[in-house]
Parts: sequence; C-alpha cells; structure tokens
Amino acid sequence: MINVLIDSIKKKDAPIVVGLDPMLDYIPGKILEDAFAACGRNLAGVSEAIWQYNKGIIDAVCDLVPAVKPQIAMYEQFGIEGLQAFRRTCSYAKSRGLVVIGDIKRGDIGSTSAAYANGHLGKIVIGKHAFSPFDEDFVTVNPYLGSDGVKPFINVCKEEKKGLFILVKTSNPSSGEFQDRLVDGTPLYEIVADKVAEWGLDHMGSDYSYIGAVVGATYPEMGAALRKIMPKNYILVPGYGAQGGQGKDLAPFFNEDGLGAIVNSSRGIICAWKKEPYAERFSPENYADASRQAVLDMKEDLKQAFVK
Amino acid sequence: MINVLIDSIKKKDAPIVVGLDPMLDYIPGKILEDAFAACGRNLAGVSEAIWQYNKGIIDAVCDLVPAVKPQIAMYEQFGIEGLQAFRRTCSYAKSRGLVVIGDIKRGDIGSTSAAYANGHLGKIVIGKHAFSPFDEDFVTVNPYLGSDGVKPFINVCKEEKKGLFILVKTSNPSSGEFQDRLVDGTPLYEIVADKVAEWGLDHMGSDYSYIGAVVGATYPEMGAALRKIMPKNYILVPGYGAQGGQGKDLAPFFNEDGLGAIVNSSRGIICAWKKEPYAERFSPENYADASRQAVLDMKEDLKQAFVK
Repeated sequence: MINVLIDSIKKKDAPIVVGLDPMLDYIPGKILEDAFAACGRNLAGVSEAIWQYNKGIIDAVCDLVPAVKPQIAMYEQFGIEGLQAFRRTCSYAKSRGLVVIGDIKRGDIGSTSAAYANGHLGKIVIGKHAFSPFDEDFVTVNPYLGSDGVKPFINVCKEEKKGLFILVKTSNPSSGEFQDRLVDGTPLYEIVADKVAEWGLDHMGSDYSYIGAVVGATYPEMGAALRKIMPKNYILVPGYGAQGGQGKDLAPFFNEDGLGAIVNSSRGIICAWKKEPYAERFSPENYADASRQAVLDMKEDLKQAFVK
Repeated sequence: MINVLIDSIKKKDAPIVVGLDPMLDYIPGKILEDAFAACGRNLAGVSEAIWQYNKGIIDAVCDLVPAVKPQIAMYEQFGIEGLQAFRRTCSYAKSRGLVVIGDIKRGDIGSTSAAYANGHLGKIVIGKHAFSPFDEDFVTVNPYLGSDGVKPFINVCKEEKKGLFILVKTSNPSSGEFQDRLVDGTPLYEIVADKVAEWGLDHMGSDYSYIGAVVGATYPEMGAALRKIMPKNYILVPGYGAQGGQGKDLAPFFNEDGLGAIVNSSRGIICAWKKEPYAERFSPENYADASRQAVLDMKEDLKQAFVK
C-alpha cells in the first residue's frame, strides 16, 4: 500500500492528505437541517450530516490529492451512529481512488493490539466468511507500550499489504513533556524513531517502508534530525496550516528524491469556506469548491519546501 | 465517581475489577450457535454472542465485585456491530450496580481528545437534547501526547464527576522499551507518575483523586515506588493471574488504609470454565458459575496482599 500511496503522490504531484475531522460548526446549515429532517435531530441526524459533508469534499478533491485521513475521534464522539459515518466515509473515499489513513492512534498489547489491527486493517473470519469491519489502508499507532503493542499491527500489515504511521513527535505544544525527555542526551522521540527505522527496514515496499512515522510540522528542526534517523520511513506531517506550520518550513521532512513525507491539512481545507480568503469568494453551498481551492493553494505553498 | 467506586470496594470487600475482554474461543459453543441462528453467521451474530456471554458473567458476579472493565478493542474488532455489544455491556453493567471502566487507551490532542472524552464520559448536545454515546464511568488514557491530550479528559471528568486511569507503567514484557528509559536517572514512568500526581491533586474526590493510574501487577517493585509518588491516586492494576501477577505480590500497590488499588483480572475470570481447576467442575453451560467461583478465589488470594 505504501507503493500505491507513493505512485498516487507522484501522479497527482501532491504530497497532501486531507484530514476529514468534521466539527459540527464546520458543516453548512443547510446540510445539517436536511440531515435532521431526514434522520432526526439526534446522533443519527448529525452522522448523516457529517457523511454528506464529507462526500462533498471527497468529490471535490479526489482528483487532486492521493489520500484522506479521517480522525476517528470526531466520529466516535457521536457513538455508534458516528462510527457508521466513519465507515461510510472510508469506503466512499476508497471508491473514489483515495488512500485512506485511519487516524486512530490506537495502542495496546498482544491480543488487544491484534484485535485493533484486525478490525481496522485486517479481516475477521467467521465460519467460511471473512469480514473487513473498518478496512482502512493505513492507521496511526501510539508506541508508548513498546514492541508488544506495535508488532501485532505490523503482522496484519504484512498479511494485508497495508501500512502504519507510528507517533514519534506530535505537533501539539505539550508534546515535549514526555517525548522530548533526554535519555543519555538523546530525546525520547529519537529513541522511538530508532525503533520505527528498525521495524521499517524489515518491512519494505519498493523504495520506502510500509511502516511510517508521525512528526509534527510545528517542529521542523526535529523533523530534520528524524528524517536522517528514518531515511526509508514515510513521514506523515500534521500541524500544517491551522496549527502553524508553513510550506517553506517543510523542506526538512522530505528526502532528496522529493519524496518521504505527506503533509496533512484538516481545518485549513475542510473548513476553508468559513475563513478568509475563501469566505468572501465561496458561499456555504459551495463549501466543497472552497476546499478544492484550498487544496490548490496548499499545493502551491508546498512548492516552497522544494526551493533550494 | 471515585467515591462511588471506593464505597463499593469497601462494601463488597473486593478491590477487584472483572475485565470483560471476550475472545471468540472463550464463548461456549451453544451461546455462539444460538446467536448465529438468531442474527446470522456474521459480525452481528458474533456481537450478539458476546453480549449474551457478558450478560451471564455480569449477572453471576455483580454482587461480588464493584466494577467491570470492558476492553473496547475486543468489540471494535467486530466493527459497528461489536461496538453495539460494547455499549450494551456498559449499560447493562451499570444497571446491575457496577462501575464501568472503559479500557479505551485513547490519547490525542485538543479538540480531538475532547471528542473522545465527550463520547465516552460526557454528553453531546444537539439542539435541546443531550446524548451520552458510550457513557462509561472511567476510561483509560494514553499520556504520550502530554497535558494537551489529558486535560480535555480531565475537564469532562470535572463536569460529569467521572474519572480516568492514565497509563504509567503497563504490564506487558516490552513496556520498558520506552517507559523505563532513564531521564537524569529517573525512569520515564516516574515522570509520567509525577504528572498524574500533580493533575490528581487538583481533582480530588473525598480521600482519593478521580485521576488514577495504570501500573502493571507484573512490576511490583516499581509499584512500590509509584505508590509513593502517587499517594492520592487510585491505581488500576492489570496483569494479575494469566499475565503472571499473584496476590502476595500486590501489597506494594495498596496504601496503609487498605485502599488505593483495584486489581483487574480478565481471562482468569471470564474464561475460567475452560481452565483448571474450574474446567473439571463446571460444564460449558455453567461458565458464569465458574467465573463466580474464580472471583471468590481471587478475593481469597488478594488477602495475601494484606498479610503483614
């Protein structure tokens, strides 16, 4: 699947993933009201609205970007109904040719990690039939529990030719509280990165491993160090745009081949219609066109990462 | 909710939580076949079987223990249908007077952590109505992302009078890979524990904080150190029984008042009917009676923790 992702990044000339992290106040009023009219003013209604909203964005950007990254928390908060919208979104995105990165940040041990891996990336066999409950292409994984937590995910990836992005250095302000602690002079995130590199080398696609890492755009100097530690691991970079990162800061995350990183933007794209410079040009009904324009602008901005 | 939990631990004289982590091969054949006949040989059938199986165990142990801890991965692996069994299990356990600890190990940042917190512990307001999608009493949280990830959970706990158990030192063999790394001579798990103690003091129930910690039974010497660092935080102790911990090893996790810890057993209780010494005394139909006997035996074994 890492080969599929890279091919699509090259073909669309866009190392961009659109974060489908819908908040209720991002959704144009008419979509919400139509969904409430159809399904009720309840969790089912909200979930229908999220699905319709996502579908509009997927249709508007699927020829421009290689991948989407639905953040499962934004669906799980609406319970079973919300998770139905998550599943539907993943499945529809795949039908439109997009790679789906499930931002689930799961992490547990042994049979429990295996259960998450099977549910999100693998298959559940019942009698003579196999079911793929959520069926993402990649998922994000939290490494705090060590190899016991990560290996069951890797095993399923091997079987299914899917992939992982393991949290190394996250984009948030307090990520340093534990991740930056120095162990014999080496920050913990580099120790995690060493492990990711090691796991990655055993599980290679053509040029890159199908075990990747998450490193926040907000820490470009750390990105440079981590790029060197993990030369063969794709880096998923959150924190662009709304969280502060900019195209010109992203150079350290890429390799000389122009590959090696894929940059996420969520709010900046899916909520573009509510923010300048898009708000004055796009009406709420044209929210998906605003998202498309925001992707085009992001593509342009990211070129700054490759200016020598 | 920490006060409710402690009152129930005292009343039932059992610092025990039953881990409801069903694996398909734990479930007696007749329950599975009945569920398949009713719902189909598919994810819905499996989920119905899990629910029936859990219900039997809850009915058999609810007068003996204060709490259950469903591990959400074991439900999520079966997709939407599995999560319906999770929700049903949580709700039924509460109706039988049990405190529900959702073992979800979520951890993200800002609005994303808030979404998990609202969905699992809090409320979602839509128009004039409030919905509680999963409605556990406590959840487990992964601290790797720092305060940004934990605080949104704490805020919801404050509002709803609910609680957390934050991963400090997990019970698995490779937990030391990152958690034991020495930062200026102090292991990372103690640094996390310092933070848990600090967060905890700001959010106190009567005698204990409603912010607790997870520390594995498999590391009793670390338990002793962590008990001192977090005197007012309840410790949820996994890894008893099947993972190797024993009653006599658990003394370090408790305070002088005989409180401060609650010990989880999953397989050892819910799968007792398949293992000696229970397998020869209980038939598959009496799996729940075997679970009840395993709880009584665990209660007896835990008394060793208090022998001076």
